[in-house]
Amino acid sequence: MAGNSYGRIFKITTFGESHGKAVGVVLDGCPSNVELSETDVQFELDRRRPGQSELTTPRQENDRVEILSGIFEGKTTGTPICMVVYNENQKSKDYSKIMNLFRPGHADYTYHMKYGIRDYRGGGRSSSRETIGRVCAGAIAKKILSKLNIEIFGYVKQVGNIKAEKVVKDYIEKNPVRVADPDKFDDMYNLILATKQKGDSIGALIEMVVSGLPAGIGEPVFDRLNAEIAKGIMSIPAVKGIEFGRGFGVVESFGSENNDEITPYGFLSNNAGGTLGGISSGQDIIFRFAVKPPSSILINKKTIDIFGNPKDIITEGRHDPCVAPRVVPIAESMVAIILVDMLMINKRFSIF
Amino acid sequence: MAGNSYGRIFKITTFGESHGKAVGVVLDGCPSNVELSETDVQFELDRRRPGQSELTTPRQENDRVEILSGIFEGKTTGTPICMVVYNENQKSKDYSKIMNLFRPGHADYTYHMKYGIRDYRGGGRSSSRETIGRVCAGAIAKKILSKLNIEIFGYVKQVGNIKAEKVVKDYIEKNPVRVADPDKFDDMYNLILATKQKGDSIGALIEMVVSGLPAGIGEPVFDRLNAEIAKGIMSIPAVKGIEFGRGFGVVESFGSENNDEITPYGFLSNNAGGTLGGISSGQDIIFRFAVKPPSSILINKKTIDIFGNPKDIITEGRHDPCVAPRVVPIAESMVAIILVDMLMINKRFSIF
Amino acid sequence: MAGNSYGRIFKITTFGESHGKAVGVVLDGCPSNVELSETDVQFELDRRRPGQSELTTPRQENDRVEILSGIFEGKTTGTPICMVVYNENQKSKDYSKIMNLFRPGHADYTYHMKYGIRDYRGGGRSSSRETIGRVCAGAIAKKILSKLNIEIFGYVKQVGNIKAEKVVKDYIEKNPVRVADPDKFDDMYNLILATKQKGDSIGALIEMVVSGLPAGIGEPVFDRLNAEIAKGIMSIPAVKGIEFGRGFGVVESFGSENNDEITPYGFLSNNAGGTLGGISSGQDIIFRFAVKPPSSILINKKTIDIFGNPKDIITEGRHDPCVAPRVVPIAESMVAIILVDMLMINKRFSIF
Amino acid sequence: MAGNSYGRIFKITTFGESHGKAVGVVLDGCPSNVELSETDVQFELDRRRPGQSELTTPRQENDRVEILSGIFEGKTTGTPICMVVYNENQKSKDYSKIMNLFRPGHADYTYHMKYGIRDYRGGGRSSSRETIGRVCAGAIAKKILSKLNIEIFGYVKQVGNIKAEKVVKDYIEKNPVRVADPDKFDDMYNLILATKQKGDSIGALIEMVVSGLPAGIGEPVFDRLNAEIAKGIMSIPAVKGIEFGRGFGVVESFGSENNDEITPYGFLSNNAGGTLGGISSGQDIIFRFAVKPPSSILINKKTIDIFGNPKDIITEGRHDPCVAPRVVPIAESMVAIILVDMLMINKRFSIF
Repeated sequence: MAGNSYGRIFKITTFGESHGKAVGVVLDGCPSNVELSETDVQFELDRRRPGQSELTTPRQENDRVEILSGIFEGKTTGTPICMVVYNENQKSKDYSKIMNLFRPGHADYTYHMKYGIRDYRGGGRSSSRETIGRVCAGAIAKKILSKLNIEIFGYVKQVGNIKAEKVVKDYIEKNPVRVADPDKFDDMYNLILATKQKGDSIGALIEMVVSGLPAGIGEPVFDRLNAEIAKGIMSIPAVKGIEFGRGFGVVESFGSENNDEITPYGFLSNNAGGTLGGISSGQDIIFRFAVKPPSSILINKKTIDIFGNPKDIITEGRHDPCVAPRVVPIAESMVAIILVDMLMINKRFSIF
Repeated sequence: MAGNSYGRIFKITTFGESHGKAVGVVLDGCPSNVELSETDVQFELDRRRPGQSELTTPRQENDRVEILSGIFEGKTTGTPICMVVYNENQKSKDYSKIMNLFRPGHADYTYHMKYGIRDYRGGGRSSSRETIGRVCAGAIAKKILSKLNIEIFGYVKQVGNIKAEKVVKDYIEKNPVRVADPDKFDDMYNLILATKQKGDSIGALIEMVVSGLPAGIGEPVFDRLNAEIAKGIMSIPAVKGIEFGRGFGVVESFGSENNDEITPYGFLSNNAGGTLGGISSGQDIIFRFAVKPPSSILINKKTIDIFGNPKDIITEGRHDPCVAPRVVPIAESMVAIILVDMLMINKRFSIF
Repeated sequence: MAGNSYGRIFKITTFGESHGKAVGVVLDGCPSNVELSETDVQFELDRRRPGQSELTTPRQENDRVEILSGIFEGKTTGTPICMVVYNENQKSKDYSKIMNLFRPGHADYTYHMKYGIRDYRGGGRSSSRETIGRVCAGAIAKKILSKLNIEIFGYVKQVGNIKAEKVVKDYIEKNPVRVADPDKFDDMYNLILATKQKGDSIGALIEMVVSGLPAGIGEPVFDRLNAEIAKGIMSIPAVKGIEFGRGFGVVESFGSENNDEITPYGFLSNNAGGTLGGISSGQDIIFRFAVKPPSSILINKKTIDIFGNPKDIITEGRHDPCVAPRVVPIAESMVAIILVDMLMINKRFSIF
Repeated sequence: MAGNSYGRIFKITTFGESHGKAVGVVLDGCPSNVELSETDVQFELDRRRPGQSELTTPRQENDRVEILSGIFEGKTTGTPICMVVYNENQKSKDYSKIMNLFRPGHADYTYHMKYGIRDYRGGGRSSSRETIGRVCAGAIAKKILSKLNIEIFGYVKQVGNIKAEKVVKDYIEKNPVRVADPDKFDDMYNLILATKQKGDSIGALIEMVVSGLPAGIGEPVFDRLNAEIAKGIMSIPAVKGIEFGRGFGVVESFGSENNDEITPYGFLSNNAGGTLGGISSGQDIIFRFAVKPPSSILINKKTIDIFGNPKDIITEGRHDPCVAPRVVPIAESMVAIILVDMLMINKRFSIF
């Protein structure tokens, strides 16, 4: 019953429910003497925050981080860093209509079956608000990686049937879809907006790139770098699939075309997506993952209550019609945490 | 540097290289009083063994398991079970031709970069022979699951561009491709054979089903059941992508069609693939994963040696043209180990 | 660099420095449906609190716990429970006199050597305030154990050269020394007070008893119950030794007198202290541990500053002359956490 | 149910029962390029081996190690090292007399209560033969430590009421008691022999010293170096207590005498035993532990059978009258494993 931690040396434990007092994280194992302020963390939190455009939920969540420990005179001390974000939108609402209903697509039913009790005021731990803790820790991980010249960035590659083609890196943070292809922004934006107006939601595809990672990172056999990333990304709410490099394209490939040839000047291709045998090759790590359409929609659906009676349900409230733009910084944070952990595990005695 | 273990309560540690003395596994945390013989384990090992048809490598590996500990009078005692398979095919071959070359698509380069030393006689730990340990432990996990009426089975769904449609479960183990669709067997068989004759290799898609798993299994937040399965499957050599339920199909889906409605008689669909919020819903767990074409091919490729000089290479030897048929029992074992671990973690005090 | 967690299934992570914003704990893996209020936790915190008699530091620390997550409608939900105690005594004091000095007996020197940075305003993580997190989690562990009729209690057995003999259980919480022998209270009290008046400090011996623990708890080989307790107790500040049952007395014993004979009505003695092979025998778990005299004394001592210059130091401030009375509830909490974790690990499938 | 592993980065998993096919260990996380041969490991195994003098069991156990994996061309490769010692003394003896009896002082009763099944031919996992795996891994840990100029040595300090005083390091390995004081050898030797002739057994005290360990090793809060050593040592069969530095002597000490003063030339005393706040100070790590008299004696004792009937028992066979001499290399190995793990965890990024 203890799955709220990730990492071995650089280790995070997140806590908090969507409608409880606070959400947050304890980061244990951070190196000492990393310069760190609440502003550094707030920057990443703001990237994740809802209410920034018509495309996201209009909920106003300020999500101000407070660092409770582990920092002294602007630097990490090597001790656990506890970061808390108090929940603001906790109105004493009337929950009597939904308290006994299982929302389709949500984890209400499975939490009820697992624990026999459930904070029915929202998604609880399965809410996307849980990821606030990851983003706080991810902000620190990113600071460490930037010192090592390792960069992580992600962007929306497809929304519904609209596929991006170009990757203009500078454009990503300048548009609310976080698409990297300026030519596809309008189509994606309009599709999301139209979907929202119907009370419906839509899925998307995200691509991520890690550049600057040296060769040799990742642990055989089970803790392969790609296996750890797969676990970390699949642990983000709404993710339903992940693929590296050529990905599912390998199914229809021959070895003669899929093997990445090596030359004195580097690899000639990157079908592998940056790992061989689960260990980084020095090439970019490239992967894509699919996020499902959010389960909260304004369209009537069949469900049951906790007593097994058939019911109809519309998930009212203010929800994202497409989570992909906000998943980008969450996924970047998750990958940053994984990489710092793997880099710290990898450290060898210099004498051998 | 210690990634050779998986599991928390039901925990395996595999060891051994492809061309060393032996490969094997230590399983720690197995419940006591499980009836177990070497025959039980050998049955699963034989399913994984090469040399069983024209489609696999003609290497003759008998792969006889020897149980060194943990069993007494035909039952597990709760103590660690060490299982060893001695490598037979260790000829004192001349390796001078390949000892300094990095085979494209293999992990030679990354192991060299990570460790500065490498058993150049074969794939070492990155060889598929490593999975023998998983299959030994998986055989025990399957015995436990069968007592709980939980079943795992997998089958080849696509080879190259040949796609299976039907699922005739009984047919899977009766054909060397392990396809579940009798109508597609000939095409797949012929494609693999033709590929082999060209000295090339081909990718494939595998689908897996877990039935009988009760609701409530899997741990929030990071140790979601789907996240653990994603990690476990991605840790199998050659796997490049995984998707659950509707998988990458969610990208083009609306919430109104993707949400699985609930009725007093069960869910009306299974787009989720059997988990909600990472916890099992009681529906079948369904996922698919892509395996790349094997990297060992008889076609000339560019590479470098450990000194950085450009070289040409043909990976001689007897290799599988398509690994999918043999990956099926490996993946079943991996999933069985994950499920037993998750079931044991989930046990609650009965008094609360 | 990540040693701030304990436990496998019932797992705690403590955070916070003595002079930072807050100290606290995240408890992950608590069973759901345990009735719990802040009052339950506050009760144990108050037992640990300083300022309760002339014997402890006169610092006024209210130490009010705030539960941020994991509780809903008065019950645990199975999700992480974050508990925070804000530090109140953070005056903007002038630390210029001590900021560069290593206090003898404290961890100033070793933290400086390990991390290259140190919160010089106090003990930081090595302060006894860190144990507040353990006591918060221990309060919950004790609630679970009480449902299972397992009881833990400790008492001061020796202070300096004053040795207690009788164990009158009800007397322990009624006297500020937490001695169990009413006849020795005056002597111990007076010795501590006299020591305090000299500006000095004094060591002590604590004995602990666990009753009601069923046989079979504890994991071979490394995670023996006595080994886990030894680790947990040794991890409490000031503890320098621990012994079980006959303890160091076995050195001068023969097997013929040390072996505990077994009869149909139970064991005839308990030299083992309640475990055999590291697994509980159903007898009381009995152990003793030594706590050193506190390092903060008003007597001049030699030290160096961070530049290596010789200095004299007197550790001013308000400190405990003997920590033993306050260590009792801390140690009880630590043992309670260990026992719940071990009980949860031990749960077996009922079908085998 | 999974307690057979120790370590985080440098991690061992031992396996095997006293009367099964083999005992051994898998060491995962060993740095690559450490020169290693079976001879290196055999040297430490031979130090632990019984049958070397009149003082130990006359059982002839050759205990030849076989390395199954992880070594290539005389060097470690960074992959798991599996080491096996096949049990030789497995006669098809008649066990009907003891199969249903619980030997007093042994773990027969507790294993039976925990697992409901037990290898009744001997101690199984609770046998001292389990420590063979630790000694194999310890031999490798010692090789690594010697490269870092860190040395561990232990010696018998007391047997029954005979106390050693001097420490002549070179003498330790030259006498079968492993006492460091040549003047006390005869008395100890004669006491053990006389005890053996009575069919009885005797306890002892062992002291250990680690020299050359740099400051800064050990992790706050729970994974303090002294806490990890306490756990490791208490996990060795027969150990009943452990103390560091002044140990239980602190109970009767004042802070003014116990605090170790610091000067530019080092600490003036070592009452702490080499750690402050659980982190090494650069001084010698010094601790002592008590080993009980072996439970196997030729003197009649009361017990019960598995059905609860009262029985008499004499533990026949060839047993050690005092285990201390053989525990010395076992404890050294355990500490070596802990230190290498802690050193590897401690590695920091050099850029911060």
